[in-house]
Amino acid sequence: MNALPLLYLGPQGSFTHAAAKGFLPKLHALPVRRHPKDEGLRTEAEMRPVEHVSDIFEAVNGGDAFGVIAWENNVEGYVVPNLDGLIDAEHVVGCGRLSVDIEFDAFMLPGDDDPLVEVVAHPHGLAQCRRFTHELGLREVPASSNAAACRDVRPGQIALGPHICGELYGLETKRQAVQDYRGGRTDFLLLSPRGMAEDLMRDGDPKQEYESVLAFIPLSTGAGVLAGLLDLLRDAGLNMTSFISRPIKGHDGTYSFIATIDAAPWQPHFKRVLHAIIEKGDWVKTLAVYPRRERPDPPVTSWMLPSGGAGGRTGQSPDETRTSLLSQFI
Amino acid sequence: MNALPLLYLGPQGSFTHAAAKGFLPKLHALPVRRHPKDEGLRTEAEMRPVEHVSDIFEAVNGGDAFGVIAWENNVEGYVVPNLDGLIDAEHVVGCGRLSVDIEFDAFMLPGDDDPLVEVVAHPHGLAQCRRFTHELGLREVPASSNAAACRDVRPGQIALGPHICGELYGLETKRQAVQDYRGGRTDFLLLSPRGMAEDLMRDGDPKQEYESVLAFIPLSTGAGVLAGLLDLLRDAGLNMTSFISRPIKGHDGTYSFIATIDAAPWQPHFKRVLHAIIEKGDWVKTLAVYPRRERPDPPVTSWMLPSGGAGGRTGQSPDETRTSLLSQFI
Repeated sequence: MNALPLLYLGPQGSFTHAAAKGFLPKLHALPVRRHPKDEGLRTEAEMRPVEHVSDIFEAVNGGDAFGVIAWENNVEGYVVPNLDGLIDAEHVVGCGRLSVDIEFDAFMLPGDDDPLVEVVAHPHGLAQCRRFTHELGLREVPASSNAAACRDVRPGQIALGPHICGELYGLETKRQAVQDYRGGRTDFLLLSPRGMAEDLMRDGDPKQEYESVLAFIPLSTGAGVLAGLLDLLRDAGLNMTSFISRPIKGHDGTYSFIATIDAAPWQPHFKRVLHAIIEKGDWVKTLAVYPRRERPDPPVTSWMLPSGGAGGRTGQSPDETRTSLLSQFI
Repeated sequence: MNALPLLYLGPQGSFTHAAAKGFLPKLHALPVRRHPKDEGLRTEAEMRPVEHVSDIFEAVNGGDAFGVIAWENNVEGYVVPNLDGLIDAEHVVGCGRLSVDIEFDAFMLPGDDDPLVEVVAHPHGLAQCRRFTHELGLREVPASSNAAACRDVRPGQIALGPHICGELYGLETKRQAVQDYRGGRTDFLLLSPRGMAEDLMRDGDPKQEYESVLAFIPLSTGAGVLAGLLDLLRDAGLNMTSFISRPIKGHDGTYSFIATIDAAPWQPHFKRVLHAIIEKGDWVKTLAVYPRRERPDPPVTSWMLPSGGAGGRTGQSPDETRTSLLSQFI
């Protein structure tokens, strides 16, 4: 028995650990021995915390592990260092995506009857649970991580952390979901050595639909480079759900573009576009492919629009339009 | 004397405080009494720390203050909650942009001759100065912010924080710039009530070139909406240096697009495009205009490309191309 481990950013009890647990069924379904280095059938014991995300990229790139990285948070946006890491890692690819609700439970030592006076968590965790802290009149004590706060909690303290910390560190749950706002969530990617990705990406259902994340770097320059690229995608009928530009790592003033597209790169209409891009002399790399997520797709209506701004509503005066655009100066 | 204050995210001694100091000359140059609420001539005493970024948006939106917010970090990308805040704030506009090097100095109490055993900072600060910490054999102690660490430093402790903390808290500098990697920097925006922006944006030099940040929301839907928008910008010869998509706040599955463009919205070629977008029925808002930054503009050459990927280099085999694209599965 020598299955590749599943690496995640520790310590144990982090939100990434919770995501890693969520990816286990997918790894368990992996056919055994499809790859010389892997003998399949993972158990929870084979999840392993590491100290730096770079350790994950290195091990997966060498074909020695699977990995989990945080990808996108609905409030904070992309986890850009991880995005840059994936663009740079030659033999690594994302083959699963999973959403974790960012919920904090309040834990204490079992049987602790000291008066509760302090609350311990990472400063971000503390900032997200202020209402609970004020309600109980606790003093905030910062920790290096929420998981470390739960691991090291002392009598008279509440530690804030992901749900899994309760069982993991044998703690008593004082209250569940004490964060000020509901609805925060982070998406994670399952990373695989590129050579082992096929089995993880395709689950045998011919009707399965996919999403792909691609990085493009135009080597031609000048205004309209991006418009030309998007024209190709549009003309192939490809739908994009996320798009950002990033400087190429270490090269200010250069640009790569990262797009999430509703298709798999082995589908003929998408494959044709990718080859057309290469023939133009531009660079492209598939960063991830995973089953298409259920997504709401509401039409944008005027009540959704932010305050101010021009257009999309009736009854704006020319003055309001000019002020929204700042087009009135000379 | 009743000048509008300049608000920044505290505590005093934060990187945002350093940025606020950098914006003072621009505010000092503001003509007095151009706006009923402002009497001009700010001094350092009129910079004021606040507890939440939302306090800044609220005060500036009400015409009662100027403000400073973190905008983009070269490693972490956009500060997305601040971007969302600016999209949503009806009467607020960015009118200056300034880059602050993210450098940590190591401070101690003056005359402290206790043996140094601990290093105190925000967990992010601690993570960025590990080499220094290991060299001195210190134990890490997390703080709620770097500035708070400097303010509250005790005998036997080193606090890590921005350069301005030394003078601010009367500390002795043990060593300057102790972060592991150089080159980290964060860009900040100066925020103004929209009605007072003209004086801050235009400095009288008719040759001054500008950059603008705009938010677009297409109200039409379907594949190619974005391509159509970018075609308009391309056909007007407008150069884009940054581009991202964001869900409209609170509405998953909807999209706004935020673009940074090398032009000011009052220039005729740009103004025409903006009006064309409104006439199509889409929504647009100018989020910021500021003098064009000096930027490197290197051509992308093959040695800059990330590892792996297809195209942009000679000598790739068809197999390598398929593996980079993941176009080989069926």
